[in-house]
Amino acid sequence: MSESIYKFIELVGTSEKSWEDAVASVVKKASETLRDLRIAEVLTLDAKIEKGNILLYRAKVKLSFKFQNE
Amino acid sequence: MSESIYKFIELVGTSEKSWEDAVASVVKKASETLRDLRIAEVLTLDAKIEKGNILLYRAKVKLSFKFQNE
Amino acid sequence: MSESIYKFIELVGTSEKSWEDAVASVVKKASETLRDLRIAEVLTLDAKIEKGNILLYRAKVKLSFKFQNE
Amino acid sequence: MSESIYKFIELVGTSEKSWEDAVASVVKKASETLRDLRIAEVLTLDAKIEKGNILLYRAKVKLSFKFQNE
Amino acid sequence: MSESIYKFIELVGTSEKSWEDAVASVVKKASETLRDLRIAEVLTLDAKIEKGNILLYRAKVKLSFKFQNE
Amino acid sequence: MSESIYKFIELVGTSEKSWEDAVASVVKKASETLRDLRIAEVLTLDAKIEKGNILLYRAKVKLSFKFQNE
Amino acid sequence: MSESIYKFIELVGTSEKSWEDAVASVVKKASETLRDLRIAEVLTLDAKIEKGNILLYRAKVKLSFKFQNE
Amino acid sequence: MSESIYKFIELVGTSEKSWEDAVASVVKKASETLRDLRIAEVLTLDAKIEKGNILLYRAKVKLSFKFQNE
Amino acid sequence: MSESIYKFIELVGTSEKSWEDAVASVVKKASETLRDLRIAEVLTLDAKIEKGNILLYRAKVKLSFKFQNE
Amino acid sequence: MSESIYKFIELVGTSEKSWEDAVASVVKKASETLRDLRIAEVLTLDAKIEKGNILLYRAKVKLSFKFQNE
Amino acid sequence: MSESIYKFIELVGTSEKSWEDAVASVVKKASETLRDLRIAEVLTLDAKIEKGNILLYRAKVKLSFKFQNE
Amino acid sequence: MSESIYKFIELVGTSEKSWEDAVASVVKKASETLRDLRIAEVLTLDAKIEKGNILLYRAKVKLSFKFQNE
Repeated sequence: MSESIYKFIELVGTSEKSWEDAVASVVKKASETLRDLRIAEVLTLDAKIEKGNILLYRAKVKLSFKFQNE
Repeated sequence: MSESIYKFIELVGTSEKSWEDAVASVVKKASETLRDLRIAEVLTLDAKIEKGNILLYRAKVKLSFKFQNE
Repeated sequence: MSESIYKFIELVGTSEKSWEDAVASVVKKASETLRDLRIAEVLTLDAKIEKGNILLYRAKVKLSFKFQNE
Repeated sequence: MSESIYKFIELVGTSEKSWEDAVASVVKKASETLRDLRIAEVLTLDAKIEKGNILLYRAKVKLSFKFQNE
Repeated sequence: MSESIYKFIELVGTSEKSWEDAVASVVKKASETLRDLRIAEVLTLDAKIEKGNILLYRAKVKLSFKFQNE
Repeated sequence: MSESIYKFIELVGTSEKSWEDAVASVVKKASETLRDLRIAEVLTLDAKIEKGNILLYRAKVKLSFKFQNE
Repeated sequence: MSESIYKFIELVGTSEKSWEDAVASVVKKASETLRDLRIAEVLTLDAKIEKGNILLYRAKVKLSFKFQNE
Repeated sequence: MSESIYKFIELVGTSEKSWEDAVASVVKKASETLRDLRIAEVLTLDAKIEKGNILLYRAKVKLSFKFQNE
Repeated sequence: MSESIYKFIELVGTSEKSWEDAVASVVKKASETLRDLRIAEVLTLDAKIEKGNILLYRAKVKLSFKFQNE
Repeated sequence: MSESIYKFIELVGTSEKSWEDAVASVVKKASETLRDLRIAEVLTLDAKIEKGNILLYRAKVKLSFKFQNE
Repeated sequence: MSESIYKFIELVGTSEKSWEDAVASVVKKASETLRDLRIAEVLTLDAKIEKGNILLYRAKVKLSFKFQNE
Repeated sequence: MSESIYKFIELVGTSEKSWEDAVASVVKKASETLRDLRIAEVLTLDAKIEKGNILLYRAKVKLSFKFQNE
């Protein structure tokens, strides 16, 4: 068990619906190429505004996954 | 392009439904008097509690908009 | 009015639906034994991932309530 | 109740007596033009020194008040 | 000497006079039920405002005391 | 001397040359309408990139100036 | 799985040997009365000094464990 | 004017009366040997407790003064 | 528009002239292999010293660019 | 000398013995594929607990190494 | 090699030209009396303003140098 | 008792064995010239790496000791 090394990367994703959905989109995209994704920590949340309405919810997350020889 | 100056202000808004909705209410209200709102960054999120239930979702945001001679 | 003393504790709760729901579950559970819960401040948000999907939304909150002789 | 939007501003005030007095002077001055002041959070405290004595106590505070169309 | 374990809790107290007095009221109340209080670190200071005057000084403190089997 | 109250605002300015120039442009613009500007503290520095070159230097500053009845 | 609520507490422990040992002593003591201890996060490390030597290694940790009705 | 170099040091002082007095005692002591003290910024405030009462108010400050060849 | 996912990496670059130049050198080097670089946020600035002169200006930046399957 | 660009990554490693050993395991693993590792800064330390004992020491580190075209 | 002990001090310097120059002036002055200066880390940057123009660039730096018996 | 003034300085020490040993080396060296050393708080821990192994453990500490007229 003491052998596992995990790596962290920072990504930002967006959604027109909610921050939960913005995080889900990042996780989905990242899981196509990264193995054993474990946790997505929220670093920052913001929203892009257009004409008094929220256009996009954005979530910057730190993702952890199993470190491989790159 | 290098001419634009943006200003930031901090506001807190509330909603009975969600934090997304609390931010949307701040943005809507602020857009009545501030020009060219761009981004609402979330600074803090909390919730007011009454009898074991969440009464209000509150979001404190930093809003950026075009700086005018005030 | 100057007599009230409030205490803060940190709890983490989870939900399969949203962070709002994760906070609500913490508040509900804590309200069974703590008197006069007032505010739940969000400290951190994250999500557990399984096979490219979000399994659980987690919210770490700081709860304030009336301090009693323990 | 969910309609209220509050705004925050940062001010620094001074007093020759104490930091409590420095905050009181900021609050008094600000209340002349801002409606519904609620809370003054202390951000930083310092003191100006002259010849080994404290000349002025300074308090930088974040004030919250009802947001109006400006 | 290496046997002692100390615990920290966060409390907020208030006073109409000063922040020193707000901390003293927290310490007094907590000492009724907690053994061997040692240090009260100030985490945040703020003030509630009413009609341009300070109504209450509030101090949020972290108290350390001897950890007992609870 | 204990009468002065100062206010802080956050602005971001840009320049194609340097961060010093970005701050100078903010100061110049703000001084058209704000009295007694004193200090511009740098909060963050960044740069917009286009095709491997820096397009714009941006500086987010906190400006202090004499607080007036608004 | 979404039912679990975890609580965090802060404790400081000491050792004459090392910080690892200081944390182990906190964990051992806390486990006598708290159920399902999971993680001990290190918040701060310091050392008490006497006559140019380290007398005690101290570790302040945040412990998480299953939240029970208290 | 651009020639001046200032140095900062951290000191902690105590008082049985108030934090203002604790800072004043630090400033007085430091001014015996350091030239041109300007500002004492408060870094942390705490209080030592004995039998449910505050024994000592402590203030940790950062002092700035003219840098000399040492 | 909600499809874009951006990644952040941290790099440090150096220059004998200025921090602006240190950032430009990082951006230039990174743009050889990373697509759609957008923003370089400055995290820290420092300088290496030799015999009382500045030898190298160093800038640690966080770069954002379009996330690709790696 | 001004040509070198360094990159930073975050990894977490574990050991049953100590935090020093946890960092050494991260460094060893990373050095198999990354060139010119220089510094491992400790970001956080924690420990996994099982039945009142420490099961694993974990260290989250930021590693710097020579940036290559990837 | 494991014998070296380095000390850090905080200084603030100024320049009418740029922040690079403000740091250089601190380094030059400090090098007259301190041995083996290595790194000047920038802590804060600000600017004094007069009549809408920048009068002085100020840089607060942390300098490291070889620790001697003082 | 309220007469004591303590000063803090920052030093970094190294060891080929452990961070505990790096701190001990700083304390030993500093105690040759500074009176009444009390506490060494750990500010940062890192490690220098050579060929995939840890060459040196480094600890940056804040030391407190009795303030004397310098």
